[in-house]
Parts: sequence; structure tokens; C-alpha cells
Amino acid sequence: MTDHIKYSRERDALLLLDQRLLPAREEGFECRSVEDVVFALKVMVVRGAPAIGVTAAFGCYLAARRTLAETPADWRAVLSARLERIEAARPTAVNLSWAVREMRRVWDLNPDAGLEDLAGIWLARAMDIQAADIEMCRAMGRFGAAFIDHGDTVMTHCNAGALATAGYGTALGVIRGAVEEGKKIRVIANETRPFLQGARLTAWELKRDGIPVTVACDNACALLMHRGLVQKVVVGADRIAANGDTANKIGTFGVAVLAERFGVPFYVAAPVYTIDPETRTGRDIPIEERDPREVTHVGETRVVPDGVPVFNFAFDVTPAELITAIVTEKGALTPPYERSIAELFK
Amino acid sequence: MTDHIKYSRERDALLLLDQRLLPAREEGFECRSVEDVVFALKVMVVRGAPAIGVTAAFGCYLAARRTLAETPADWRAVLSARLERIEAARPTAVNLSWAVREMRRVWDLNPDAGLEDLAGIWLARAMDIQAADIEMCRAMGRFGAAFIDHGDTVMTHCNAGALATAGYGTALGVIRGAVEEGKKIRVIANETRPFLQGARLTAWELKRDGIPVTVACDNACALLMHRGLVQKVVVGADRIAANGDTANKIGTFGVAVLAERFGVPFYVAAPVYTIDPETRTGRDIPIEERDPREVTHVGETRVVPDGVPVFNFAFDVTPAELITAIVTEKGALTPPYERSIAELFK
Repeated sequence: MTDHIKYSRERDALLLLDQRLLPAREEGFECRSVEDVVFALKVMVVRGAPAIGVTAAFGCYLAARRTLAETPADWRAVLSARLERIEAARPTAVNLSWAVREMRRVWDLNPDAGLEDLAGIWLARAMDIQAADIEMCRAMGRFGAAFIDHGDTVMTHCNAGALATAGYGTALGVIRGAVEEGKKIRVIANETRPFLQGARLTAWELKRDGIPVTVACDNACALLMHRGLVQKVVVGADRIAANGDTANKIGTFGVAVLAERFGVPFYVAAPVYTIDPETRTGRDIPIEERDPREVTHVGETRVVPDGVPVFNFAFDVTPAELITAIVTEKGALTPPYERSIAELFK
Repeated sequence: MTDHIKYSRERDALLLLDQRLLPAREEGFECRSVEDVVFALKVMVVRGAPAIGVTAAFGCYLAARRTLAETPADWRAVLSARLERIEAARPTAVNLSWAVREMRRVWDLNPDAGLEDLAGIWLARAMDIQAADIEMCRAMGRFGAAFIDHGDTVMTHCNAGALATAGYGTALGVIRGAVEEGKKIRVIANETRPFLQGARLTAWELKRDGIPVTVACDNACALLMHRGLVQKVVVGADRIAANGDTANKIGTFGVAVLAERFGVPFYVAAPVYTIDPETRTGRDIPIEERDPREVTHVGETRVVPDGVPVFNFAFDVTPAELITAIVTEKGALTPPYERSIAELFK
């Protein structure tokens, strides 16, 4: 699964697999403008921190493609404003701002490039980021597989899979890595309300790969761990602070607390650029609140009475103390994370 | 709200509010036979341990009404078999078997009663049980309100409300009790996947009563408690063992673990007959597994890919050590529960 984010020269557009429609329908979503890309990010046509980063990189290229170059001063201002709009599409994942910053960095390296040249440079860079993401995931898979034993049942929350990255996955990359080593493992996918990425996406892509997966309501976690049905937990991350505190999909924190209670090792798998050394602790990570409709409705079915307010925080922060190891493409970090992360960035 | 389980002499039927359709539609479900009652219990037209008990009691009456009395030996056997079918409709809540046993006890007290007389005796007893349930809930509400402070936000899981009892509620009875004392409180209703009793039912009945309620995904619990947004947790119970271990809706155990971590007092509210002194510990409580479709679909929307298996345990068991107090209609029990429960049953 590596074709769910694809730039098509023929169509001069970014083609995304519309993840909102899975598992019922496999349909594409075509982005021809910055507005399309921002919309796709906001409503989660594509989601998952690394996939957001890759999409944003192609979005910057589209921004350049769609900007008119009549006067140099103007196009620079217009393009810069468009990059800001892409960067603001979602607040929590650091990968989004990383990708846009990376494009700005490349721009700074080529200050005299004309608009068309810059577009060409950005397209090449976006494709590099995409290819590098898959390589990073495969490396994470190799490092992470060492923590997974033959016969394990591994619980995961949300979708940190091929669909959340350029392909292969972070948490699911670790699972794929273990499977590629010949370990027989099973996966429990927490359904992950409200957007149901576990039920809809993790189950869909693992089934496609023939990896045994069972879906559980998020509520079943304590019972499943208490019965000894879970040997490991592996999740992805949207942002990791300098002390190891990890923002990930809402509910991850609760899973980590339960994992500690039941003695189940809890691993985070994320590329190094998910770690933001500028973010000191989890308290400094902004938590996105999303459209109440994600909670009040499932499909067309209203499940909350009209007029009743809801909470819809999209992420929570798991404190570093609950994390057994953080698996990156450079190897696994272990506590104390202040030190192991500082060393990584030296 | 006391009319959602109502025996109608006119229609010679048990009229239930069909809770499967809330909050979208308020529609009745008419039980004219034992089969109707067993179906209503199994598919959760009516649910909630005390409400199940009351429904079962009226079901026994219907069983007698619909039995033919040509030969005494026959009707006794037929009726007894029907009572067994009612008792087997759901396994976890002790209230169901309690209600059927109570009807058998009354039958034993009137061994020579004809079928019609027995039916009359049972109808009167069912109505007594219903009225007593409301009284018990009000008493629980008074005892439990002592634990709730002015200004609290109280989290509850599932629906232990009017709809789960003959009226007023157990956990929501405690909340109503606090409100009736003039305390200004707010409620967070966990949506309670998979059947969404919190989102659909708790929010519906609290909104009707003008008690401020916000719905949260079950996944939000750790974040909400971490932010200090929850001062108390109150839940109901389906069965309480002699040591205080408490079976309740799946997910309750996880909420209790989080409550302990964040120093939030965790209360169980349940009538004394929910305590089963014959059940030594939580390990002896059978946990119902329900139709996978409750997890794979929400309304007509399929959320799990076809062919992927799911877990659907309906209950979990919260260990006594995580429970601050058990509020009953006789007062509040406190740890050690072996002792306080044993004293209650002396």
C-alpha cells in the first residue's frame, strides 16, 4: 500500500485515497488547488501525522503550480500566504509544519529561483520526502520488530499504518516488520472513536496484507488486558516532546495507563522528525478540537440527542513515564527520554 | 420518567419504550407473549439491570396469562419451562434471575393456587417490584447525594438511569438526588460503545430533566480527568460479588483504573438485590458476549471491514479495590466490602 498519496503529472493533480469512505468504498479524491489540499487535510480525506506531512509537501508544490508569476514580489507574497494556510490546516501533528518549513528551507537555499524552477524543486523534494518516509517506516519496522515476540497479540490504537504514512506504517510498520521476520502474531485494533480509524482503516489494511486482526471497542481494553489477551501495545505519534511525552490519537493515554497496570509493554513508533525538541513537555502541545458531528453522528445516524453538547478532542498526551520505548528509524530510544532525545539531536 | 415499562390491562400486554430507537424516535414495543419478552430482553428493547428485573417479573405474569390450564400437571411444567426461558434471556445481571426466583418463591407460597389465581398474584407482585424499585432508587439518590458536592462535574458510564430501572435511576438517581438537594452539578456521559447507551439514553433523559450533560467519547476519559474536569464518577451495576467486585457495562473497569490514577472518587449505585452473596468474587460472574453486529455497524453504516472478527463483551468486572463506596437503598457500603456486604446480609 504505497499509492494512496500520488502526484499525477498527467492530471496535474494530487490524487488521494479518500479514507473517509473506507472500508465501504475505495474512492479517490483529486486535489487540484491549495484549497483542495487544505480541505482534504481538515476533513481527514488523509490523516496520520506522516501522511499529513507528505500531503502538505505536495500541497506546497501545487501552491507554486497555481500561483501566477507576473510580478516576482507578488508571487512570493501569495505563495508564502498559501504555505501558511497549508501549515494551519491542522494544529497537533508536527509533521505538517515540518514539511512546510522544509519547503521554505529549500526555497531559502534557492532565493533566486523563478516560480517555475521553484515548483520543480519542490516537486522533487516532495517525492523525496515520500520515498524517505517509506524507507523510515521500513527501518522502524526492523528496529521495532525486536520488541515483538513470536505468538504475541499486539494491540494498536487508531491507524498508524500504511494509510497514515507514505506506505508501510509506523506502528503497523513494526507489526509488518515482525511478520516479515516470520513471527506469527495477531493484532487487536481498537476501533478508535470517534473517527473509527482502527475499525475502518487498520482492520482494512491488515486484512489486505493477510495479518490476523480483530477489532475491539475502545471500552474493551481493560477486560482484554486483564484476561492476558494482549502482550504488547504499539501506537504511532503526532508529536513527541523533548521529554518523551507523546501526543497521539485520543484514547492512547488511557490505553497506556491500562498497559502499565497490567504489565503490558507500551511502544511508540514514529520517525525522528515527529520529535519536536522545541516542545519541552506534553503541556506545550496544542490539542485540536474537531467538529462535534464526528461524535454526534456515525454516517447518517444521529447518536447524541439534538442540542446536547459534546467533547471532541482529537488527541491526548501520554506521559513519557508510561512509554517503554520510542522506536525511530535511527533505533529505539529508551528512558530517560530527556537524555536519549537530547543525544539524538546532538 | 416512570412509564417506559407499563403493564396495560386494556391491551393485555406489557408496553415497553423501545430504547433501541432513542434518541431518534420515541416508539413503543408491545409484548403479548413470553417470546416477545425474551426477544425484548435479548435485543435490548429494554436494558439496565433493574429494568430487566422488572420486565422479567411482568414477563412471568404474561407467561401465566398465556398458559392453558387444561391439566394442572401440564400447565405447571409449561409455565416452569417458560420461566426458565425468561431467566436465560441474558446471563450477567443478577436482577433477571432474582425476579424469576422471586416469582417462583411466591408460587411456592401458594402451591395450590390455580393458574388464574397465580397470574393475579404475580401481576400484583410485579407491580410491587416496580414500585419498590422506584422507592429504592429514590433512597439511593438520598444516600448517594451526600457524596456529590455543589459545583461537581460527575462522569457516568452507560445508562444507569430512569430507563435502566423502573424510573429515577441508580447512578442517575444519585445525580437526581444531588440536584433535588439544590446542588448545581454537571454530568459527563461517556457515550459507551458499542450500544451507545450514554450518548443515546443518558443524554436523552438528563436533557429531558434539564440537568446539564455533555457527551464524551469513551476515549476522552483520561484527558478529561487529567485536565481536572471530572470530580466524581458514579456508575450502576449488573452484579456485585460478595467481595465487592462489580460487573457493569464494558469500559467501566477502565474508567475505574483512570479514576484511581487521577484521584477521582468512584462510586457504584445499585439496589441491594444486585449484590449476589452466592457469587464469591468477580471471577465467578459470567460475561455475556453479544452479536458482533453491535460493533461492526452503527445504524446501517458498516464500520468494520467485512470478514474481520470483533470482540463484543458486554460487561467487565471492576475490582472492589477501585470502588470508593457502593450506594444502596439501605445506605452506603464502604471497604472492606467482604465485611460490609456480609453484615448487610446478616
